[in-house]
Amino acid sequence: MKLIIAVIEDKDSHRLIDALSEKEYKTTKLSTTGGFLKEGNTTLMIGCNSDAVDDALEIIKNKTSKREQMVAPISPMGGNADSYIPRPINIEVGGATVFVLPVDQFLQF
Amino acid sequence: MKLIIAVIEDKDSHRLIDALSEKEYKTTKLSTTGGFLKEGNTTLMIGCNSDAVDDALEIIKNKTSKREQMVAPISPMGGNADSYIPRPINIEVGGATVFVLPVDQFLQF
Amino acid sequence: MKLIIAVIEDKDSHRLIDALSEKEYKTTKLSTTGGFLKEGNTTLMIGCNSDAVDDALEIIKNKTSKREQMVAPISPMGGNADSYIPRPINIEVGGATVFVLPVDQFLQF
Ligand code: NI
Ligand code: NI
Ligand code: NI
Repeated sequence: MKLIIAVIEDKDSHRLIDALSEKEYKTTKLSTTGGFLKEGNTTLMIGCNSDAVDDALEIIKNKTSKREQMVAPISPMGGNADSYIPRPINIEVGGATVFVLPVDQFLQF
Repeated sequence: MKLIIAVIEDKDSHRLIDALSEKEYKTTKLSTTGGFLKEGNTTLMIGCNSDAVDDALEIIKNKTSKREQMVAPISPMGGNADSYIPRPINIEVGGATVFVLPVDQFLQF
Repeated sequence: MKLIIAVIEDKDSHRLIDALSEKEYKTTKLSTTGGFLKEGNTTLMIGCNSDAVDDALEIIKNKTSKREQMVAPISPMGGNADSYIPRPINIEVGGATVFVLPVDQFLQF
């Protein structure tokens, strides 16, 4: 048994929890602030069998890896809005910091 | 030294923390959502000496084990309330998911 | 790699996180209640290389150690305020409970 602690972006948490649930991994979500990543992150605790760790890590990687996202920039306030042509810009989103911890005992009551 | 991480139902947290305090176990409560159990759970971190782990686990088991609870059902809305005889029903409550983690160093400043 | 879990007082968390950031330690802050210390504490998770643990612990100790603080007492309500001379009193603040956990794997995606 291992305990995976994953610090991820809030916006990735729903799709990651869904993907983990589909494979029957049970997750507990802790509210967190600041930290390894930007503001607005979430810490997930995932208990899993030692031989399932690689699979769970693969799911975490797939759902959270750093990636570029096109966003429409806000048009500049007070400028000449007529002549302003907003061009989408790339920002980096996602990312995960993951610890796999050894577990002495795992129990369910 | 071990670190016990217990994910329990919110409703069991007060009585468990009380029971652990009586035996001088120190607990830290993290707010959690979703997870190993139903919505509305709490994660407790309990630091304890290696030779006290079994005793602490026994207390956790006693205060959180899954059990049946009789609840009065809500009477059906819009139905003929006069002829409706509410019968208490059994629901399952409680439960705990517990990890005992090894600790390299324990310090208090 | 080690995972340091530090339960500290809320009021010490900002200056500790700042001090850890200056040395490039990355921290994640969990909201916690009750616990090892008085009400109003914070749990920090700090990932660091095994050979940096002592340095990180030194920073935690410096920023959180129990210490006396002079506070002006509230003047007694309904008493004869004219004849009441408030004298600052010493209260104990700070303190940290720290676990250093072994880590099997550390990954960043
Ligand atoms: Ni969904
Ligand atoms: Ni009580
Ligand atoms: Ni600052």
